[in-house]
Amino acid sequence: MKRTDAPIGVFDSGLGGLTVLNEIMALLPDENTIYLGDTARVPYGIRSPEVIIRWSFESAMFLLSREIKVLVIACNTASATSLDLLRQRMPVPVLGVIEPGAKAAIRATRTGRIGVIGTETTIKSNAYADVINSLNPDLKVFSLPCPLFVPLVEEGWVDNEVARLTAEKYLKALVKEKIDTLVLGCTHYPLLRETIAQVMGGGVSLIDSARETSLELKKLLEEKALLNEPSSIDASREFFVTDSPAKFKALGSRFLYDRAHYIKEVELMEVWDETRWKKK
Amino acid sequence: MKRTDAPIGVFDSGLGGLTVLNEIMALLPDENTIYLGDTARVPYGIRSPEVIIRWSFESAMFLLSREIKVLVIACNTASATSLDLLRQRMPVPVLGVIEPGAKAAIRATRTGRIGVIGTETTIKSNAYADVINSLNPDLKVFSLPCPLFVPLVEEGWVDNEVARLTAEKYLKALVKEKIDTLVLGCTHYPLLRETIAQVMGGGVSLIDSARETSLELKKLLEEKALLNEPSSIDASREFFVTDSPAKFKALGSRFLYDRAHYIKEVELMEVWDETRWKKK
Repeated sequence: MKRTDAPIGVFDSGLGGLTVLNEIMALLPDENTIYLGDTARVPYGIRSPEVIIRWSFESAMFLLSREIKVLVIACNTASATSLDLLRQRMPVPVLGVIEPGAKAAIRATRTGRIGVIGTETTIKSNAYADVINSLNPDLKVFSLPCPLFVPLVEEGWVDNEVARLTAEKYLKALVKEKIDTLVLGCTHYPLLRETIAQVMGGGVSLIDSARETSLELKKLLEEKALLNEPSSIDASREFFVTDSPAKFKALGSRFLYDRAHYIKEVELMEVWDETRWKKK
Repeated sequence: MKRTDAPIGVFDSGLGGLTVLNEIMALLPDENTIYLGDTARVPYGIRSPEVIIRWSFESAMFLLSREIKVLVIACNTASATSLDLLRQRMPVPVLGVIEPGAKAAIRATRTGRIGVIGTETTIKSNAYADVINSLNPDLKVFSLPCPLFVPLVEEGWVDNEVARLTAEKYLKALVKEKIDTLVLGCTHYPLLRETIAQVMGGGVSLIDSARETSLELKKLLEEKALLNEPSSIDASREFFVTDSPAKFKALGSRFLYDRAHYIKEVELMEVWDETRWKKK
């Protein structure tokens, strides 16, 4: 049996998963955490499912070697493509961000018309629509890829004229469908929340999977009796990346809000070099 | 000595290098070519030099295993970071896109004020300014990264309102510097040429390294007596990618213009899996 003070492993294609880690740290402050961002190979949302499944497996194996008690896939694209396989193969519970987001959307909708935006690969996978309709086949789901949202966020252009025009161009199709709930199906998108809300109008609820995932994680840890005991020592925060830590540190503060001081120490873990980390 | 019918190897981080291949096929129609696009790990322009050097070396080694007679680095970021090392290590001549572009800019400028735009890593490397000033220290070079240009081109948004606004926002600093020549220091940027030209105004010459590189390549092959003999058989065109060939085929036509029919057959070459291609 896993020790309850074993860390929660969180992996993402890059920085976006920090929004999920943020919520986990807020809701479960006594839990130790290890974050892995595959920054050398980000973004995942433009790649084929085969490649993403392989890389997700590599990241999971690295975190497993650090003795995690539970694995959180904090990337929508990796969750959409790799959750089933990782659940089959991992000896620890695995949680993705799609199911929590889908369930929250079902709770939020009044009219039964739900929009989902995400990367190309997430939308093509149909993962959100599949979960939503498996729980309630009567709901109508309208899915739309928004490839430029991630680069806009990474450039820090979240509320200027370019961001607004881009959002208008993408989202007009969803406005026309008269949805009342919109799932922000990519961890970067909450940073564009205000701009997206303006374009969609006041009547549309925006669903951010990060918060929902942390709630689901807490429930899971309770069920499995894996919650850590409160302690007088601060919980440990480890960060690993696959490209230069410098950029991660610089950009990470955009995603980790007031907890950015945690990412002072970031280690370079070249997960793609299998011979290197398999030796551990 | 290399046989003259050995292929020219061309590598790029993804699709952009097809603009260079395009010019090579037009200028040197009798030359056999092999193109490698590292589409699983594109874009290079946001990564650290260490990672790019390593991957460029992997791509070069793969092409070398196919018995190329000369290597063309058709990616500005890879040229900016890896040219020197590859020249030292490769047993065949190596040509990048920076030197040809820099020389063309020097020929074009009248006022001695040259702008260079490119990815974050290309601009940080200072490669264009270094080459330009090593040839003429009196020229003033103004360098500027434009990170959103690549995703815009990949989305096909090259002449809409978002593209124009983005170009205005980035380029206003160069307009203010009153440059008379602008190097498009990324293989994607020529697809935004019209929009960039409108923002910069009529008096500014735009330099596209693709054409210059093919001219330099021709000169190199002549000097080394490596030009292929004209033949009644069509030159061979091989394409390799590291992610799914389907997307490469679909998007490739944007870059290869009327020669898109050549990329019907694209093989998946997982260059990142060293054990796999080292066996060949």
